[in-house]
Amino acid sequence: MEIAQAVQQIQPSYIREILAAASDKKVISLAGGLPDEQTFPLHLMKPTIDALTTLRDVFQYGPTAGYPPLIEYLTAAYQLPDTHQVITCTGSQQGLDLIARAYVNPNDTVAMEAPCYLGAMQVFGLAQANLVTVSQDRWGPNIEELELCFKTAAPKMFYAVPDFHNPTGVSWSLERRQQVAKLCNQYQVVFIEDAPYRELRFAGTPLPLVSDFCPDLSIVLRSMSKVASPGLRFGTVSGKRSYIAPLIKVKQGADLHSSLPVQAIILGLLQHPEFADHIGKIRELYRSRYDTLFEALQTYLPQGCHVNATEGGMFVWVTLPQCDTFALAKTLLANQVAVVPSPVFYPPSSQAPSALRLNFTNANPEELVTAVQRIAEVLDKTTFPFAIY
Amino acid sequence: MEIAQAVQQIQPSYIREILAAASDKKVISLAGGLPDEQTFPLHLMKPTIDALTTLRDVFQYGPTAGYPPLIEYLTAAYQLPDTHQVITCTGSQQGLDLIARAYVNPNDTVAMEAPCYLGAMQVFGLAQANLVTVSQDRWGPNIEELELCFKTAAPKMFYAVPDFHNPTGVSWSLERRQQVAKLCNQYQVVFIEDAPYRELRFAGTPLPLVSDFCPDLSIVLRSMSKVASPGLRFGTVSGKRSYIAPLIKVKQGADLHSSLPVQAIILGLLQHPEFADHIGKIRELYRSRYDTLFEALQTYLPQGCHVNATEGGMFVWVTLPQCDTFALAKTLLANQVAVVPSPVFYPPSSQAPSALRLNFTNANPEELVTAVQRIAEVLDKTTFPFAIY
Repeated sequence: MEIAQAVQQIQPSYIREILAAASDKKVISLAGGLPDEQTFPLHLMKPTIDALTTLRDVFQYGPTAGYPPLIEYLTAAYQLPDTHQVITCTGSQQGLDLIARAYVNPNDTVAMEAPCYLGAMQVFGLAQANLVTVSQDRWGPNIEELELCFKTAAPKMFYAVPDFHNPTGVSWSLERRQQVAKLCNQYQVVFIEDAPYRELRFAGTPLPLVSDFCPDLSIVLRSMSKVASPGLRFGTVSGKRSYIAPLIKVKQGADLHSSLPVQAIILGLLQHPEFADHIGKIRELYRSRYDTLFEALQTYLPQGCHVNATEGGMFVWVTLPQCDTFALAKTLLANQVAVVPSPVFYPPSSQAPSALRLNFTNANPEELVTAVQRIAEVLDKTTFPFAIY
Repeated sequence: MEIAQAVQQIQPSYIREILAAASDKKVISLAGGLPDEQTFPLHLMKPTIDALTTLRDVFQYGPTAGYPPLIEYLTAAYQLPDTHQVITCTGSQQGLDLIARAYVNPNDTVAMEAPCYLGAMQVFGLAQANLVTVSQDRWGPNIEELELCFKTAAPKMFYAVPDFHNPTGVSWSLERRQQVAKLCNQYQVVFIEDAPYRELRFAGTPLPLVSDFCPDLSIVLRSMSKVASPGLRFGTVSGKRSYIAPLIKVKQGADLHSSLPVQAIILGLLQHPEFADHIGKIRELYRSRYDTLFEALQTYLPQGCHVNATEGGMFVWVTLPQCDTFALAKTLLANQVAVVPSPVFYPPSSQAPSALRLNFTNANPEELVTAVQRIAEVLDKTTFPFAIY
């Protein structure tokens, strides 16, 4: 049976492959995007889990939009006006997929940052979107490029990760947030704000969502995967009711609704008086790991490498002298450290600068330092330009 | 933001609307497809749920194909050869959606029975398939029609519910199963076997899956929604590895993977020594409700109505003299009984015979009898043909 055209173009996921290779116990993996298992607040979920079988109604079919008591809680927590609504999804990844299915026809133009979250490229690729990209500087997307893109390519939407970007760690400045919202309003481009790392700020000042500056022209994706548990698969999508209604229609066909016992567990966790403290502890843990990684990179990396500082999230982006980063990643794997090379985060047709994404949330300080020493050792032996790009 | 073309054609779900109207406590609803909440084996899930927080790994990201210990269990339980594999989904509804997304291009032809499961029409509609239908008799799909359809329309796949069909309750005879498999082999049409009601046989002899007669040319969808809990959202898809691989690719973009704690709960339930007995009890309960409904229908319905007998599942199909069944369903709702009119189960362009789907699993015997009396009362007052069809 021939597979659909939309699926034929999906590349095998390099990250999945490297994660499989990295399962060797001797390899230190900085390749994944996994939170540390020890941060999962199982003790705060336990009271709800223990009482789960007394909530018989969550084991019955329920509304596509989500578990009503949780929807009520989130509506208040997100301070949504009556004109807006929130729905629950099987991870924010599903929310993104619903947006693409509800709004993107083949060849519709979607703007995104480059580099960009891999899962977003997969989703928009499956929707056969025409992807156009805008480069980043340390304060966010390049505004002149973005305006030119909006003017000449007239994208339907602009997808971005303004808080602790995956893979670069960039967090947009307040001014850049306002500028982007203004451009979206001016050119009537809907802003798709993906905020999975937003709670993981361990330095600097918390900033408003970009969507706060264009609330009627945006959709926000949130996730519990980084502060609670990715295995539960829980995320939300919120925005104007008229934007969300088509997502509900698609979700009804996609899976009727997401697991209700999972949503009951999430509600219990969000209402737990110790949950805010718990997030504080995760931030502290990740800050210290980031500090360790950053310091080791500054200490050991050879000249010509640049490390992007970050104020939160899970990733550090290291730019390198021009080289074949796939070949480099393979050499590093042979030296027992797993990283993700930059081209993975760019649409196939675009030119990726040489860089590596390093994750600092799922390795301990000793592993982080050893991993950097191994990377430095390989880079020291490398003559740049390394192979042909 | 204009919604995608594929979504513009989705009709609002009549069933969802009628279910909303039927939430009035005075209305007896035979409209839904809900199992009785009292059948949920919460006591058999409890040991796993109580131990859930000791299984830290199920709260981490996991493989897209499913929770490995559960996949191992299901591979053995389904007796899959090495050439085949099973994946887990957010309900079998998601499995169906993945099949449509992985294989159906716009205008690809998909064959199905008429009437047909509404959720399948939604999914294939979203994939913009060209739907062709084959009528049913009491032993299954009309074979001559099916062969003509395979010969002239050359569908890519044939989707069907051979066990206790939704909405007709028809269960295919052994001979019909073999005939369909033979035709699929002859015309190289992939058989999509949706088996959510298969465990709910309360009379007659268990029969092999249709796919047992064409294992290399079929995909099987199974669900735990009717024998365990629909709210958990758990189903599986199995078939040849080459058929399943594209589904995994699509699922990776769709939601990365389904909830792992849910899958751990399902594994615990399937391994519980009392689970088989529990299914026996559900069958017994539903058999007695079916008997009550069937007897009441035979007793009270006016001449000209015909009741399809069934050996399992959740639905009874009542054919009526020609009438506007939507108008009839509205009148019935005003008389405090909710049912689903037949056109809902047919593709928009086709002619539906006048009929009603009645559910017998989510009302008690007294309600079932009262509901039938109310239906009979309205029908008695109706002069057929009732309004213009």
